[in-house]
Amino acid sequence: MFKNVKTVLVLLLLSSVGLNAQNKVPVYLDDKKPIEERVEDALSRMTTAEKIAMIHAQSKFSSPGVPRLGIPENWMTDGPHGIRTEVKWDEWDQAGWTNDSCTAFPALTALSATWNKELASLYGKSIGQEARYRNKNVLLGPGVNIYRSPLNGRNFEYMGEDPFLTSKMVVPYIKGVQSNGVAACVKHFALNNQEENRNTVNVVVDDRALYEIYLPAFKAAVQDGDVWAIMGAYNKYKGQQCCHNEYLLNDILRGEWGFKGVVVSDWGGVHDTKQAIFNGLDMEFGSWTNGLSWGTSNAYDNYYLAKPYSEMIRKGEVGTKELDEKVRRVLRLSFLTTMNKNRPFGSFGTEEHALAGRKIAEEGIVLLQNKNNVLPINLSKTKKIAVIGENAIKMMTVGGGSSSLKARYEITPLEGLKSRIGNQAEIVYARGYVGDPTSNYNGVVAKVSLEDKRSPAELSAEALKVAKDADIVLFIGGLNKSDNQDAEGHDRKELNLPYGQDKLISDLAKVNKNIVFVNISGNAVAMPWVNEVPGIVQGWFLGTEAGNALANVLVGDVNPSGKLSFTFPVKLSDNGAHALGEFPGKEEVKYNEGIFVGYRWADKQKIKPLFSFGHGLSYTTFAYGKVTADKKQINAGDQITFSVNVKNTGSREGAEVVQLYITDAKSSLPRPVKELKGFEKVSLKAGEEKTVTFTIDKTALSFFDDKKHDWVAEPGDFEAAIGASSTDIKSKVGFSLK
Amino acid sequence: MFKNVKTVLVLLLLSSVGLNAQNKVPVYLDDKKPIEERVEDALSRMTTAEKIAMIHAQSKFSSPGVPRLGIPENWMTDGPHGIRTEVKWDEWDQAGWTNDSCTAFPALTALSATWNKELASLYGKSIGQEARYRNKNVLLGPGVNIYRSPLNGRNFEYMGEDPFLTSKMVVPYIKGVQSNGVAACVKHFALNNQEENRNTVNVVVDDRALYEIYLPAFKAAVQDGDVWAIMGAYNKYKGQQCCHNEYLLNDILRGEWGFKGVVVSDWGGVHDTKQAIFNGLDMEFGSWTNGLSWGTSNAYDNYYLAKPYSEMIRKGEVGTKELDEKVRRVLRLSFLTTMNKNRPFGSFGTEEHALAGRKIAEEGIVLLQNKNNVLPINLSKTKKIAVIGENAIKMMTVGGGSSSLKARYEITPLEGLKSRIGNQAEIVYARGYVGDPTSNYNGVVAKVSLEDKRSPAELSAEALKVAKDADIVLFIGGLNKSDNQDAEGHDRKELNLPYGQDKLISDLAKVNKNIVFVNISGNAVAMPWVNEVPGIVQGWFLGTEAGNALANVLVGDVNPSGKLSFTFPVKLSDNGAHALGEFPGKEEVKYNEGIFVGYRWADKQKIKPLFSFGHGLSYTTFAYGKVTADKKQINAGDQITFSVNVKNTGSREGAEVVQLYITDAKSSLPRPVKELKGFEKVSLKAGEEKTVTFTIDKTALSFFDDKKHDWVAEPGDFEAAIGASSTDIKSKVGFSLK
Repeated sequence: MFKNVKTVLVLLLLSSVGLNAQNKVPVYLDDKKPIEERVEDALSRMTTAEKIAMIHAQSKFSSPGVPRLGIPENWMTDGPHGIRTEVKWDEWDQAGWTNDSCTAFPALTALSATWNKELASLYGKSIGQEARYRNKNVLLGPGVNIYRSPLNGRNFEYMGEDPFLTSKMVVPYIKGVQSNGVAACVKHFALNNQEENRNTVNVVVDDRALYEIYLPAFKAAVQDGDVWAIMGAYNKYKGQQCCHNEYLLNDILRGEWGFKGVVVSDWGGVHDTKQAIFNGLDMEFGSWTNGLSWGTSNAYDNYYLAKPYSEMIRKGEVGTKELDEKVRRVLRLSFLTTMNKNRPFGSFGTEEHALAGRKIAEEGIVLLQNKNNVLPINLSKTKKIAVIGENAIKMMTVGGGSSSLKARYEITPLEGLKSRIGNQAEIVYARGYVGDPTSNYNGVVAKVSLEDKRSPAELSAEALKVAKDADIVLFIGGLNKSDNQDAEGHDRKELNLPYGQDKLISDLAKVNKNIVFVNISGNAVAMPWVNEVPGIVQGWFLGTEAGNALANVLVGDVNPSGKLSFTFPVKLSDNGAHALGEFPGKEEVKYNEGIFVGYRWADKQKIKPLFSFGHGLSYTTFAYGKVTADKKQINAGDQITFSVNVKNTGSREGAEVVQLYITDAKSSLPRPVKELKGFEKVSLKAGEEKTVTFTIDKTALSFFDDKKHDWVAEPGDFEAAIGASSTDIKSKVGFSLK
Repeated sequence: MFKNVKTVLVLLLLSSVGLNAQNKVPVYLDDKKPIEERVEDALSRMTTAEKIAMIHAQSKFSSPGVPRLGIPENWMTDGPHGIRTEVKWDEWDQAGWTNDSCTAFPALTALSATWNKELASLYGKSIGQEARYRNKNVLLGPGVNIYRSPLNGRNFEYMGEDPFLTSKMVVPYIKGVQSNGVAACVKHFALNNQEENRNTVNVVVDDRALYEIYLPAFKAAVQDGDVWAIMGAYNKYKGQQCCHNEYLLNDILRGEWGFKGVVVSDWGGVHDTKQAIFNGLDMEFGSWTNGLSWGTSNAYDNYYLAKPYSEMIRKGEVGTKELDEKVRRVLRLSFLTTMNKNRPFGSFGTEEHALAGRKIAEEGIVLLQNKNNVLPINLSKTKKIAVIGENAIKMMTVGGGSSSLKARYEITPLEGLKSRIGNQAEIVYARGYVGDPTSNYNGVVAKVSLEDKRSPAELSAEALKVAKDADIVLFIGGLNKSDNQDAEGHDRKELNLPYGQDKLISDLAKVNKNIVFVNISGNAVAMPWVNEVPGIVQGWFLGTEAGNALANVLVGDVNPSGKLSFTFPVKLSDNGAHALGEFPGKEEVKYNEGIFVGYRWADKQKIKPLFSFGHGLSYTTFAYGKVTADKKQINAGDQITFSVNVKNTGSREGAEVVQLYITDAKSSLPRPVKELKGFEKVSLKAGEEKTVTFTIDKTALSFFDDKKHDWVAEPGDFEAAIGASSTDIKSKVGFSLK
């Protein structure tokens, strides 16, 4: 294989045995040198074959390093909510390891509903520790696609409808992950807002919506979060696949934002070698090989960025400038992660992480409605609690697509309630309905349900019987992670609850007025029976400690403080994408609603939502003072500060998310009625009062002018509104920009 | 699962988000602190369950770290000759990875035959780099069991019959491995000198043989090599399994030698919980679970040091002192390997390693006989070369037991010859015989042969025909890595060559006098036809570059310089273990030959070996001067230096291994006629002369006095002999110890 190379032999013998003391550390291994110098040095030592190897996968979740130079392999892991179980080398099936049962953290919708940046940091730090301990150097998350329609099957993985909220939450998440020497990989860049036809649909969106709504979280990730990796999306934009998209990757991400990290394809998101070479992609993953690489042939050689690329280079059809640039980026990733000698060692499946997850879950649960103070459950007066609904017993860490987990454990709502309530009250359970038994993703079937052969009528009858003589009914339903619910690969088919829950809830409300609906979902659902049910709780997918967190809120050990990160519309047509735009698109989808997404659409159309963006109740009450501004007028370079007093006027400690919305009185281009530009979560003891301040500058007043292709803050009058939600505005103050 | 722990929550929130800058690094993570302090700090933080988890396997080759504390898992790898392919979690089958094709280095018998300590260092450094790159922190090797009988199926993994040579070679190997932050794990401690009945046989050996012959290499590994891990043996000693043996592990290894590293069981070598607790074992591996741990139940809980141990602790039957001590040792291993932030990153399957392996192979090949200068092949006069024998085409990196490898590539002898000779001569090949097709180890069948349905008579006829009209015949045969050849698990059944080779070689020698026998083996074989064959080469198992190394020696690009590390007896009864002792034992094996192993037996019995220990020819010739001593008499604390001139009297460059043997003229206990106490490999250009010096002290004069249980150097007369082998003594000089 190798020819006689006498000098090499002599050198290697000398270097190994004779001259150890004089060994000079090569620049790329010298961590006292700047990373850019190390990158160039390593690059200069690499062969073309080594470069090609480094930019595409070698297995389902790994890509080669440079074994000759001691540059380690890259190991990616799903996903945003926990470290995915080990799968076989080239198959999606689990590899049967017993050391990979992770902490399942709450889904990102729950995190966004905390409106607590410190918890985003805690989340990122904790999940990064889990990735680090499992020797993964890239965490495939978080997801920051904007909640455009409540039917998107993957909304539960994202952080809601508002670009400002998402931006503020994603930055500390990234920094937390990356403090472990593990790259966060923000996804899916960009405009991946539906699951049906996600590989083929071309998104048509105007530049204003692109820049104002769909890109800000990515920009914040890059510029404020210093994220080391970004994942391309499956869909097309301007007719080009987003994983190799000239506009998104070359012009915006690298050109306008100066991103220096790696662009990773979504799994199977690459479709063309030449575009992959020239349009900003760095690493190709997940192109179809399932099971093929076993044995002698290596199916990964067929990757678009493998042999087809090296063949083009060999034939002189393309040069190596782009290849070098890709490799530079991958090398940078190595130096920041696997080759960072000072990164910590991580930790995995720990009590600390479970408690972090529970804390996030408890702060993310949203009390949507609480008529007659039906909650918290008064255990001194409650003898019998009826728990009804499949989601009280169903594992929610399994299924849903790539975020499916093998959790170390998962406390279901029923288990959490039983554990918390013990013998303080009798708990009776009825399933009420049976959902879909499995989720099928990548050919792997996730079985999450228990068999039940009874008819819907029998199940309903049992539930009504159980509900009738209980002191309180907790209906724990919603969606689940089966196909066409909250699950990757497909979208929901309707806004209504599945499996006949609407009728069941109405029937239950007739036999017991003391009823609470707990919606386990990552999406808004229709609630035609909203006025028949006094208590409504948004319960999300809460991970390992789900049931404990939920029980703690329901009995009042924890005072809920979550706020919705997206609008619950009454009906689908109350949503801009469904009213004016298209959803889902097939070959093409037009975002005709433009910038009017979420509360921006409701505000514009004066539609009263079922529950508004920013809405969430507490077991205590808060009184807001009048907002004041420290100036009446600012110049373009100035800041302005708004202050408002908030007082806990109830009898127990609680936390309130105080929200700042900005309104542009008049503008040359249409603007939303108001936009979120600040929020602060403030914890107040009973009777306590605090002053909350928000400082903004002209960026909070700006819109994206598609003609100028730039952000513009137009002089004129503005209004700052303080609200407890996007529709519960407490007071306003005017100011002007000169 | 966890109760509400408000203070924990507050602390964890503070530590994550508020007080990062003030975070104090815990002692166990502070690499400025001494390791012993870090060990105690980590130990003090661990629960009993975490401690129990850490001292036994979780999969075929890994054991848990402490996920809560960020202490990484331990990943072991076979073996001494290359990094074993990835296997499934709890099965021996390969996992089908495509990134784990290693460099196959020459078997350790070949390394020992180089008599070159620098190459032992290069070997260790290189294989350690491969282990490091694959994220293995313990390399299960080298093996240093003494070559007692030529029938031992595993001799090929060891370093020959002499404790001094083995000791000198193992130390640089260990240091080389461990310079990568990878532990060497010297094996098998101790007295594992047969494969048949290896799990049950009880070795009966006197203390003199134990200390003088079987233990020195282990002692050198511990005291000179500072080895971090030692593997217990399968067999029994004094009626106790060696993996939990009071005498070997507690008294000698830890007591007398002060070993601070971990004792790892051989795979499946643990048989009793209480003995494993008290008799010096630290980590249990390989107890039978194959495939059982898939799914929910974890078969590893049934390990002797798992639940059975924790149950004993729970019931108060045993304390936790021993547990703490085991965990201390495992923690020490972590700090030296996975948690050593400054360890290099390794490299894998590289050209550098292939060339290192080739260099070792070339220096390890031994020219045993070279009548009429049949070698090197004179290509200017040779038109047709007949290559005969199955080993010319058989992969030797596969099979043989736990050292079986998935090599990146392996050059067979025929490929090496064809590549080297090209069109300089015609090469014709005949297989000559067909060996066993497979090796079956741990239920995994290694297929290494090509099908051939011809009868022995047909194969022989073809070989004779091919040989007849060739200018030279290279018969490339020997043993292979099938069962009952050179393979783990069973011993050879006879000293003679298998598969009818003896007759075939005799027949070939009759049709072509210009014949060379290349013995591919890790063991001595009988050669009844030795006088009919002018050329004999010991070709070992040479790994990835086997065929290239062999071709380079055969054509003379490389001048052979290897020397035998064990005696080739004419017949089995010329070996002490077979003449006087027992081999193999069943329930018991008595080492009645005592210290008279290898050349010590031949010397004592005045038996002329087929080829002697230390023997090996060159294509050049060396003349030795007379040895001199710098003193005539020494005191117990003195050193004495011997000098001898060696001159290359031939016409080409070559290297000679100059050997120093010491004879005790008279002693209170029987001693060998002579013992190796020094060697130096010296490279000489044609006509060049160098002075070789050896300095010894009284340790070279000592024997183990079993009554005193100590090493003793008795005053009196000694003789220092300089030899080109153990039977080719060039000159002697006397001296005395006062």
